Amino acid sequence: MTSAGDPADMTTRLEQQLSFIKELDKLKSISRRSYLINEDRFERSAEHSWHISVIAMLLAEYANEPVDVDRVIKMMLIHDVVEIDAGDVLVYDVKGREDVVEKEKEAADRLFGLLPDDQGGELRSLWDEFEARETADSMYAAAIDRLMPIIHNYETQGRSWQEHNVNREMALTFNKHMKDGSDDLWQYVKNLFDVAVEKGYLQE
Amino acid sequence: MTSAGDPADMTTRLEQQLSFIKELDKLKSISRRSYLINEDRFERSAEHSWHISVIAMLLAEYANEPVDVDRVIKMMLIHDVVEIDAGDVLVYDVKGREDVVEKEKEAADRLFGLLPDDQGGELRSLWDEFEARETADSMYAAAIDRLMPIIHNYETQGRSWQEHNVNREMALTFNKHMKDGSDDLWQYVKNLFDVAVEKGYLQE
Repeated sequence: MTSAGDPADMTTRLEQQLSFIKELDKLKSISRRSYLINEDRFERSAEHSWHISVIAMLLAEYANEPVDVDRVIKMMLIHDVVEIDAGDVLVYDVKGREDVVEKEKEAADRLFGLLPDDQGGELRSLWDEFEARETADSMYAAAIDRLMPIIHNYETQGRSWQEHNVNREMALTFNKHMKDGSDDLWQYVKNLFDVAVEKGYLQE
Repeated sequence: MTSAGDPADMTTRLEQQLSFIKELDKLKSISRRSYLINEDRFERSAEHSWHISVIAMLLAEYANEPVDVDRVIKMMLIHDVVEIDAGDVLVYDVKGREDVVEKEKEAADRLFGLLPDDQGGELRSLWDEFEARETADSMYAAAIDRLMPIIHNYETQGRSWQEHNVNREMALTFNKHMKDGSDDLWQYVKNLFDVAVEKGYLQE
């Protein structure tokens, strides 16, 4: 092991790390509004976090600017942990999204605060960066975070779009920041919306 | 975007990547034998993959030899995708583990084969390395892969241990390769087994 010294210090540090690790188990119980492609149930936030972490690794070549894939993967791994306290709020729910901002910050304080300061600080600053969406890494991260729910909707004949009365105009407006991270993926998604409208999955 | 040239080539490549990405959704339906800490159901393999990818990031200081954390995270993200075709087999099921080896290799051929060659090759070699458990990165990966089910068992009063008649001797034997990746974590786990026996969670 590379950490310094005293076994008592090591035990305290490991206990802090494990308290965070055990808390993470709760993200497996947070429901999103996306339906799985192959099973009739909502996706959970932990599953989504895994899926887009893999996606981060595979689609980086489509980012508008070069990104640090390893950093983006870490960002994706922890981008939704605040939902443990604050819950998942639909991207199309404007009022809900505004209300949850403060709750998510408090959640970040509590959750990342369980870790030793060095690690908690690193994860917190990755989360802050993801939320601010000002760097190349976080703009790419935001683009792939939006890509997967759109694919889930398309692959389930627009099930969640229909349940929340989402039409093409809303889909374009609420996802347009994808363009800041990836023109290519945004182009792909716009085409998918067109086909979805043709097929009746998405309202005109 | 950084990939070269012709839009038609880009489309084909993206379609290959998305076919793999959509296939990954199935890992969210593969049940493990670990019970969640806060919800009365089995953990799914996709959730587990997320959890230990985060853990890889947090516990690297306890690895016996220095590891490349970014590589280990990628290894963890894809280490169980073969279960999409081959299913999850309990670590204590010796015959089942032997039978599944060939199936897992075929699954790796099929699944990683969906990707463009460069990316499929990279993920396949990470998976092969994880399975062979000969490098510092893969020995650390194997140690944390075993850590979390033990914590799940302990936190649910040994529920899965009891359902599969696991006693301390078996727990020590089937997890002892943790020591190759991390003496510190192995020491922690051995102590946890002692407490679990005292509390009646694990048979003597």
